[in-house]
Amino acid sequence: MPEKRYTVRFEPDGVSIDVYREAENLLRVAMVAGVHVNASCGGAGTCGKCKVKILEGEYDAKPSSKLTDAEWDQGYRLACQTQILGDLVVEVPVESRYEKGVLAREAGPEHVLAAARLGDEYHLVTPEPAVQKYYLALPPPTDDQNVSDLGRLGQVLKREHDIPRVSTDYHVMAGLATALRDGDWKVTASVLHTHTSRRLTRVEPGDTRARTFALAIDIGTTTIHGALLDANTGEEVARAADYNSQVSMGEDVITRIIAALKPGGLEGLQKRAVKTTNGVLAELLTKAEVDAGEITHAVLAGNTTMTQLYLGLNPKYIREAPYVPTANFFPPVRLAELGIKVPSHVLGYVMPCVASYVGGDITAGVLACGIHLDSRLTLFMDVGTNGEIVIGNQDWMVSASASAGPAFEGGGVKFGMRATYGAIEQVRINRENLEPMILTIGQVQPKGVCGSGMIDCLAEFAEAGIVGQNGKFNQDLASRTDRIREGETGWEYVLCWKDQTQLDQDLVVTEPDIDNLIRTKGSIYAACSVLLKSVGLQFTDIERIILAGGFGRYIDVEKAMAIGLLPEVDPSTVSYGGNTSLTGCKLAALYRDKIEEVEGLATMITNIELSASNIYMDEYVAALFLPHTRMEEFPRQAERLAAALAG
Amino acid sequence: MPEKRYTVRFEPDGVSIDVYREAENLLRVAMVAGVHVNASCGGAGTCGKCKVKILEGEYDAKPSSKLTDAEWDQGYRLACQTQILGDLVVEVPVESRYEKGVLAREAGPEHVLAAARLGDEYHLVTPEPAVQKYYLALPPPTDDQNVSDLGRLGQVLKREHDIPRVSTDYHVMAGLATALRDGDWKVTASVLHTHTSRRLTRVEPGDTRARTFALAIDIGTTTIHGALLDANTGEEVARAADYNSQVSMGEDVITRIIAALKPGGLEGLQKRAVKTTNGVLAELLTKAEVDAGEITHAVLAGNTTMTQLYLGLNPKYIREAPYVPTANFFPPVRLAELGIKVPSHVLGYVMPCVASYVGGDITAGVLACGIHLDSRLTLFMDVGTNGEIVIGNQDWMVSASASAGPAFEGGGVKFGMRATYGAIEQVRINRENLEPMILTIGQVQPKGVCGSGMIDCLAEFAEAGIVGQNGKFNQDLASRTDRIREGETGWEYVLCWKDQTQLDQDLVVTEPDIDNLIRTKGSIYAACSVLLKSVGLQFTDIERIILAGGFGRYIDVEKAMAIGLLPEVDPSTVSYGGNTSLTGCKLAALYRDKIEEVEGLATMITNIELSASNIYMDEYVAALFLPHTRMEEFPRQAERLAAALAG
Repeated sequence: MPEKRYTVRFEPDGVSIDVYREAENLLRVAMVAGVHVNASCGGAGTCGKCKVKILEGEYDAKPSSKLTDAEWDQGYRLACQTQILGDLVVEVPVESRYEKGVLAREAGPEHVLAAARLGDEYHLVTPEPAVQKYYLALPPPTDDQNVSDLGRLGQVLKREHDIPRVSTDYHVMAGLATALRDGDWKVTASVLHTHTSRRLTRVEPGDTRARTFALAIDIGTTTIHGALLDANTGEEVARAADYNSQVSMGEDVITRIIAALKPGGLEGLQKRAVKTTNGVLAELLTKAEVDAGEITHAVLAGNTTMTQLYLGLNPKYIREAPYVPTANFFPPVRLAELGIKVPSHVLGYVMPCVASYVGGDITAGVLACGIHLDSRLTLFMDVGTNGEIVIGNQDWMVSASASAGPAFEGGGVKFGMRATYGAIEQVRINRENLEPMILTIGQVQPKGVCGSGMIDCLAEFAEAGIVGQNGKFNQDLASRTDRIREGETGWEYVLCWKDQTQLDQDLVVTEPDIDNLIRTKGSIYAACSVLLKSVGLQFTDIERIILAGGFGRYIDVEKAMAIGLLPEVDPSTVSYGGNTSLTGCKLAALYRDKIEEVEGLATMITNIELSASNIYMDEYVAALFLPHTRMEEFPRQAERLAAALAG
Repeated sequence: MPEKRYTVRFEPDGVSIDVYREAENLLRVAMVAGVHVNASCGGAGTCGKCKVKILEGEYDAKPSSKLTDAEWDQGYRLACQTQILGDLVVEVPVESRYEKGVLAREAGPEHVLAAARLGDEYHLVTPEPAVQKYYLALPPPTDDQNVSDLGRLGQVLKREHDIPRVSTDYHVMAGLATALRDGDWKVTASVLHTHTSRRLTRVEPGDTRARTFALAIDIGTTTIHGALLDANTGEEVARAADYNSQVSMGEDVITRIIAALKPGGLEGLQKRAVKTTNGVLAELLTKAEVDAGEITHAVLAGNTTMTQLYLGLNPKYIREAPYVPTANFFPPVRLAELGIKVPSHVLGYVMPCVASYVGGDITAGVLACGIHLDSRLTLFMDVGTNGEIVIGNQDWMVSASASAGPAFEGGGVKFGMRATYGAIEQVRINRENLEPMILTIGQVQPKGVCGSGMIDCLAEFAEAGIVGQNGKFNQDLASRTDRIREGETGWEYVLCWKDQTQLDQDLVVTEPDIDNLIRTKGSIYAACSVLLKSVGLQFTDIERIILAGGFGRYIDVEKAMAIGLLPEVDPSTVSYGGNTSLTGCKLAALYRDKIEEVEGLATMITNIELSASNIYMDEYVAALFLPHTRMEEFPRQAERLAAALAG
């Protein structure tokens, strides 16, 4: 749990909020506090609408041509250009007026990344990775003591490190004689520890322990993320990512599977993913000034299809009922054999899968979040192309994959995009004038809307009455604002006028977009509902929720509940885990016990095929509403909507 | 133990001998019986000297221009051209007269190959090879039961064959989905069983159990021998051999090691051995009409240097004191990765080594002979380039390697040659006229002398007084026969005149040849002596002796004792094991327990470095005599020599 740094009080309505980050952006804090400040350019500083007057406290603000000298002297600043450096008192002037109907959110760290918390924890424990280096000073051979080189090394491993029976790779044997003599019988031996065996993977002359690095790779359908870890300290020394170049052969796993079935397709896909990985790896090594030879091992995770493509396994039957993957557990693979540019000693552990649509990214996520170690009933949701859900605790787990569609990743949404620079990630709508307040990632002019922005839109539209619970636009409002209008594909809301975007047109959210988002969130909620019913539980039994996936950093938990993506629970029990797949890989790369754990939890998870469920379709249809047709499951939102209607 | 077939009685002196083979050659039987029949052409039928008169019984004889019609009608035949088909009574006429001084050898099966006996034994037990095929009918996946393909297969392996936890190679996974569906969920799974694990090496559609073959390969320094085995019956379906094409890079292991240290040398040597193996393999497959894909696994054995060269391991330190090999135990190797032309599923088990000069050929030999299972104190000798010796029983074993030199393989002997067609393999000398009786392999005109022929020569020369106990010629005898003469390199004996050879000169045995042979046999005897002393035993404690190596088929045990190559023990306790290395490979290829056994026995053997022994040199010098300077260790030969001298 990070420490509180500063408090910001917004006047005139006296809303206070705690700030947990140094130099946090003032507009962002206002948004979290539920204080409406107009903002049209996503925080780029170009629209000049987010003027606030800072009454007290320390801050750093960039000058702006949107402020007159007189305004500057009076303490006016653009909120989006202001960093908080101390406790502040801020007045929001009438023209940037806050919204009455929204309660100030209880100040809390709910936006703090679960991943960061996990990171804090594991830094306390010294890594004990699956591949461990041992420095050995061997007695040189004599006439009397002339066992083989390998035998001599084995004797010392046994005597000094209690490793009794070590198997050996041929590539180790090939260099062994030279390594021992080059090092004058002082060498560093790398040993792979598995549940059942010990395997010598490398022998280097001298003591190389100080430079030991492990690799974590998340093989995403769209993006491949890599982290390079110091295996001695556990520290992440570099992070890099790049778009999976398989994208040119298909956007999602289904089109990739189809591509894999064409002649040369599987090989082409495998090579593309490896090529991207090599680029990510090169960046990691350059950033951290590490040599590929200093890497001892890697842990990789991907969904089931990505895993099979990466390993060159025909994914055909993943797509055909009854959806059978080739394998869920994988032996260590020599990365060089896959084409990864590392020396031959580098072994990769591939995270286990559960079923065709619940893969290693999910087991890694469950591992990262420690669901399998916790007594609390946890709902884990990874919302990407599919919505993968795990419900359970240390005693049992069930999983399902909802064919959610990639709406929250930008698919099927006119201006949808991934959570990258220029993506609108936070949106508020002024209830009175229906004007938006938007923030983009990187605070540049917007290019589109990412997942968290879409959740905000949907919730804000519903609460402002812009769309009804059925997701249809309230056309009557067109008379009150020109942002609501009939466009090419039906009714739409202009989130951002063309001149404040990086586009050559107005940035809008359309009725078909909203339809898609409702179908996506409906399928996920329905999947949760089916899973819970399968074990005789209900939403109120859930003790915590962990969100993972590509939403962006600033997913608003209450907004996600407001639209019925999440069940309506205590928001403080919800956390956002970020890329839990990569975090899981990092944990497994640093702690060999975690590999045993992830195999155990993968075995533990019972997957439920929604296509074979006789209640899924009913649940899905019931969920195609904002937030849901069963309003009794959303009492707070019901109250909020009633209040909005009344107000 | 083979059955006796016929009895042959030689007249006029009434010597009888039992014959164990159908259609055995009459000249050969005479030689074994100690009945002297002159024979100069090695049994080729060209010299016409081995005339005998067959008085009774069934036989088949080729006609010869050396016999007159009258002789033919009287029952005269050339012994070398006669096959025994029933009990015979044979008269040796005066001109082909037997030798008085030699006792008829006790009729016994001491020449029957130990290997053949082992073969008889193991045919009684159904093979249970390390790689075992299992026919599995899997329940096809359904919506409810859609575990991974590999999981499904694992479930059935566990349920039906009690194989609980099987690891899997990637190349198996790559073809798994297709194999299962091509076979309509009926497949044959190949599983490698090791002490500690089970590994799935192959999945084929349908039931392929009926066609399952295993490969045994003896990687000799000079020759690579292969045997193809039906893994269901244990039957050897083909045998083939070829000269190891490494020979072009050096004759013996030392020159090969030197060659390996040159740039590209190791790779070149590895490729050459593999090339020869591929030729042998192709011949095996053609002979037996087997496809390479029907081979499940292989077992290979070679001396330590050959093993390291074959596996691409730098042999440099084998040659440098204190003589340390890279490894003595080897994990299964994928033969295709070595370059062997088999599919990728074929794994090879490499027999463990004991030390730099006691390798996998020796552990395989010990396995083949069952020394590790027997309470009798056994002396095992493999005489090739080096003389490798193991002494011990089920409780303990010691080994040593004597730098014997390749004299018994033809090296350093003017007309020495390996035991192939045209090699003189048996020699007797008429004590009266000093005329030889020779037999060649293949009964063709002689080209040279192989190991067993050399042993015979040395023994016969000594007993006939042609050479003294110091190995020097008795020049006085030159007056009695023109076969003893001074040649280019000193004194020599003409074993065969030019016109009865395949050579353009007389085939002789020289004094330097005899020197070399004495040094070789001396080093081996001295090694045995040192080994015995190291454990506080003496030669009289030895309960059986097993000879292995390239001597040829007809090594004469008493002759070997007569020259001091073997200790003077009861001849019936000596057997010739033939290629025990290949036999050991065959056993290990058919019975997985044998792999565990051979690893156990390799661990059990304590190797003694003779170069580090402070008594070896004394023992060696003492053994440079015929049979030995300590005549008390050879009482029978002492008596024989005394009798010869007196006679």
